Amino acid sequence: MTHAQLGRRELMAGGAVAASALVVASCARGKEADPVGQATSGEKGASVSGAPLADAIVPFDGEHQAGVQTPSQAHVNLVGFNLKDGAGQRGARNLMRLWTEDARALCTAETPRGSLEPEMTQTPANLTVTCGWGESFFAKIGAQKPEWLGDVRSYTRDKLRPEWGQTDVVLQICCDDQLTASHVLRHMVRSGASYADVAWVQQGFLNANGSLEDGETPRNVFGQKDGTVNPKTDADFGEQVWIEDGPFKGGTAMVVRRINMNMETWEEVDRHAREISIGRTLDNGAPLSGTEENDPVDLEARDKYGLKAIDPTSHVARAHPPADHPEQVILRRPYNFDLAPSPERPGELSNSGQIFICFQKNPREQFEPIQARLDELDQLNTWITHVGSAMYYVVPGTQGGTSWGENLLKG
Amino acid sequence: MTHAQLGRRELMAGGAVAASALVVASCARGKEADPVGQATSGEKGASVSGAPLADAIVPFDGEHQAGVQTPSQAHVNLVGFNLKDGAGQRGARNLMRLWTEDARALCTAETPRGSLEPEMTQTPANLTVTCGWGESFFAKIGAQKPEWLGDVRSYTRDKLRPEWGQTDVVLQICCDDQLTASHVLRHMVRSGASYADVAWVQQGFLNANGSLEDGETPRNVFGQKDGTVNPKTDADFGEQVWIEDGPFKGGTAMVVRRINMNMETWEEVDRHAREISIGRTLDNGAPLSGTEENDPVDLEARDKYGLKAIDPTSHVARAHPPADHPEQVILRRPYNFDLAPSPERPGELSNSGQIFICFQKNPREQFEPIQARLDELDQLNTWITHVGSAMYYVVPGTQGGTSWGENLLKG
Repeated sequence: MTHAQLGRRELMAGGAVAASALVVASCARGKEADPVGQATSGEKGASVSGAPLADAIVPFDGEHQAGVQTPSQAHVNLVGFNLKDGAGQRGARNLMRLWTEDARALCTAETPRGSLEPEMTQTPANLTVTCGWGESFFAKIGAQKPEWLGDVRSYTRDKLRPEWGQTDVVLQICCDDQLTASHVLRHMVRSGASYADVAWVQQGFLNANGSLEDGETPRNVFGQKDGTVNPKTDADFGEQVWIEDGPFKGGTAMVVRRINMNMETWEEVDRHAREISIGRTLDNGAPLSGTEENDPVDLEARDKYGLKAIDPTSHVARAHPPADHPEQVILRRPYNFDLAPSPERPGELSNSGQIFICFQKNPREQFEPIQARLDELDQLNTWITHVGSAMYYVVPGTQGGTSWGENLLKG
Repeated sequence: MTHAQLGRRELMAGGAVAASALVVASCARGKEADPVGQATSGEKGASVSGAPLADAIVPFDGEHQAGVQTPSQAHVNLVGFNLKDGAGQRGARNLMRLWTEDARALCTAETPRGSLEPEMTQTPANLTVTCGWGESFFAKIGAQKPEWLGDVRSYTRDKLRPEWGQTDVVLQICCDDQLTASHVLRHMVRSGASYADVAWVQQGFLNANGSLEDGETPRNVFGQKDGTVNPKTDADFGEQVWIEDGPFKGGTAMVVRRINMNMETWEEVDRHAREISIGRTLDNGAPLSGTEENDPVDLEARDKYGLKAIDPTSHVARAHPPADHPEQVILRRPYNFDLAPSPERPGELSNSGQIFICFQKNPREQFEPIQARLDELDQLNTWITHVGSAMYYVVPGTQGGTSWGENLLKG
């Protein structure tokens, strides 16, 4: 993949010796050689210092936006915006131009025009800024939307709260450094303030860069490995995630679900019951039909008593694509949240859960049928509640001079 | 320092070769050789993997608690607790025993007794858990308190909110991995739930481990380097921070101030005016009387116009210890916060600021006179508001079998 090769080439061209290459490879989880496109830039030639993350740059421009196929960074600031009244197509176009210029600068360790904080832009730490448009955004700019784009269908178990609902636009700011993520959140909010207001901010985290082995699946607050069955190769992404033709080519569909997870009641359950409810072991995430995390989920496998190894009501069994619907797969790119206890969650000492973010070609054919099965029956439902829901079209990637969704904003 | 030597010895004893030692040294900001005591454990011998942070352990036991002299980790969960009614001295003693056992286990990558989540305890990532007692805790256990311990004095500019006020006990959970910090917060809250209730949680961050050079001063949300003039050597800590005799020997005093920082109005000001208000440059943090960050603050220095190089009303000038009061110095160990915009901060697109945490022998002689000067006059006051305030006695360190404040809880 071009990005990855670029990273390695630059590194080598920078005259790095074997030992320093080892340091970079190790510190950055080997990302410069990662098949899914996250790169450690050797631009400053200083990555062998005590601050290996500081200079890590994920290329901003490309066929697709970064932040989807990019390995998950440690932090997310997911921000829903609504256009100001009267912004109109002109305002929307200005907003996208401004934001794209600024995001491109921030992601490549440049100081955006008009910023007085060059010191805050020097630690990209694998920063990505990814932009998505809701159905209402298309309506406001008077453009044809993807046929599938609209409200996420409702589910019987949903307890949606208005403060986590659909917005016109979303920015997904991901970074391995929370100070950078914070500055970028601030910068983008300020930069767009003439055209758009913040509706919500969802802040999440995973393990730190440097805490997980290369490619290791991160855990959620229930201790489960989350995201094992994800597309991995470019071919997988072409098949499951990227829209490959038509006017929306190069983009993808993003679904956001905010999920409260009840630590109190989860912790009342012993490990065996927890594992049955998920259908995977807690220690290495192996399906109960196998022994290793990446073993196939075999719903027909039997245990020594002749019973199904994976309970048919378990989360894994219910989420698994049926044999006649192999397209029901998605890229899960979730983040954990853990906030101060809230009066909105009586009886809970915690206020934690997951910002579930997934990507796919078409959520009506991928996310929604999966979620419909889970909503109908899933042991995990005992401890989780969906409280937020939104859907966006993630516009294609940009080149040097272009801005987000430029071709769709013409007219 | 013993801890540092231990880290390096273990590493070498683990059979690490030169190249792998280089990796660890670089990734962990060279902390295993750091003079202030943060160690990279070689216990698992696996630190040369792609997950150098995972195994990084700060020793729990020692003359002093960790988390004070320890270089700041990337994340803090600062939790204020109040004892339940009727917990009494017996409850307080049980709580301290339970908490100490659990904190010791968690900080050393062991699974605490009764925990069903061994997977969540395997990534200590420089975890420290530090316990402090408020005046009311001493009253409830019927023990003699340090003479200086009580409410922080009030200042004219304070806009204190009850939700960020004094509590009986505080736990400062610091870690380079936010998932670990989250699990530890959850574990400690649950573990103490029979005896204590959460009053508040203050969550903060700095740059990621791996984003800063070894010893580099982190920046706050205004972009200022914050914490330049801190004690650095054991001798400095002995002089400024650790209580060295009497019944409270080995402990220290902690003051917590929650400070809202107004991004809107700060950003209206140009860089020159920002620098004058602080008395330091933004780029490298040098005092305006010098050129390098660690140059002395010279309040008499003149610029080319014959004017004072450091404005006498600047933050640095006002915070500087007067010649006749050299004891007015503290260990600043602050964290940034940045939350979703709040209706409590009208007109602000951000909800950010600082969890100011400082340590000293005696806050009446160190923090309070400094803060009194700042409260009276400090250009920085234009943009900041103190909204929370609390003071604690941080009990001494423990040894293998002892628990927090054991000697004070006898009786």
